[in-house]
Amino acid sequence: MTQKQRRKPGETRDKLMRAALDLVGKGRHFASLGIREVTRQAGVVPTSFYRHFRNMDDLGLQLVDELGLVLRRMMRETRANASQAEKLMSESVATFVSHVQANRSFFLFMAQGMAGESRAVQDAIRSEMRFFSSELANDLRRLRLVDHLNDSDLNMVCDLVVRAVAFSLPDLLWVSPDDGYQTDLIREQTTRYLQLIFVGAANWKSQ
Amino acid sequence: MTQKQRRKPGETRDKLMRAALDLVGKGRHFASLGIREVTRQAGVVPTSFYRHFRNMDDLGLQLVDELGLVLRRMMRETRANASQAEKLMSESVATFVSHVQANRSFFLFMAQGMAGESRAVQDAIRSEMRFFSSELANDLRRLRLVDHLNDSDLNMVCDLVVRAVAFSLPDLLWVSPDDGYQTDLIREQTTRYLQLIFVGAANWKSQ
Repeated sequence: MTQKQRRKPGETRDKLMRAALDLVGKGRHFASLGIREVTRQAGVVPTSFYRHFRNMDDLGLQLVDELGLVLRRMMRETRANASQAEKLMSESVATFVSHVQANRSFFLFMAQGMAGESRAVQDAIRSEMRFFSSELANDLRRLRLVDHLNDSDLNMVCDLVVRAVAFSLPDLLWVSPDDGYQTDLIREQTTRYLQLIFVGAANWKSQ
Repeated sequence: MTQKQRRKPGETRDKLMRAALDLVGKGRHFASLGIREVTRQAGVVPTSFYRHFRNMDDLGLQLVDELGLVLRRMMRETRANASQAEKLMSESVATFVSHVQANRSFFLFMAQGMAGESRAVQDAIRSEMRFFSSELANDLRRLRLVDHLNDSDLNMVCDLVVRAVAFSLPDLLWVSPDDGYQTDLIREQTTRYLQLIFVGAANWKSQ
């Protein structure tokens, strides 16, 4: 088997996932997409869908896995910039915003999936968020920023941080991607939310 | 015209809205619902749909209006219980949780709509949340709990409170409605988020 032949199935799979994301990026809801529509958008025959996915739910799950890779890349980038503790928040938010801008359809899919039809996609997104929160907790412990908090309170703080950032998604996706002014406002507002949470955390009395 | 004849169109309208919500409550995504399906569920002929709604988007918008009534009822109830400032948070969250349990399909529709296909529904939900946040700001000013905060910071605090509560929606809708244990956990966790935000607010230095 030549390399070209071996790569082909993957190419169709990528095309189909890309097609679904493109339709989401154009304002469609993932839950309303049908297999026929996705294959048409991808320019492949409808039957080829089933060589790669059991159904649309399965395609959604595989998109969440890809999204996980985007998020992990984003996290590494944030960490690389997080040498100064006081800049941690504003730079994390800035990294998040720029990743959302660069992968708009992906994050639109994620925002939809959180309240979507598919329990499996919901679960996968929830565990991505939990993963994020626990990595943040590790980072804060390592930077010795939260020595006065017990583990349960630290997890609570990190969960709220992840939620506050995630909740800026509908805002970011709502403004036009080239509206720098509105995007800056959302970035500043989200950073202030995190500052407020950290002022709360600094003054929180763990039992 | 007799009263019965006059009430009929409203009945069909209610049936259609109820039918759409019932389908959402059964796990369907609003964006994936078609007019034919909704009229079948409502037990009315497909053409009757257009006597009440221009399209599914229009039905969605009218659902958001109804949702606004539910939210305002909830807010009045919370305020009636908010005589003691220290109980404000736990009782607000408890009121929210019980309203979500009692109007599950409604809140499921709202959670979906935030990242839904319809910009108009998204906008309507956003303005409900803004309304909530500004009412909360008024209450906190009235209770003299935030005299050290300027208006911009107070709005920021209230926005984050509304977001933290709204973000408990996917959690609440994710657990089975008769799972009292998980529901209690979510209620406690959300209350702790608000406590953390208020510790932050109490120690926030407005410029």
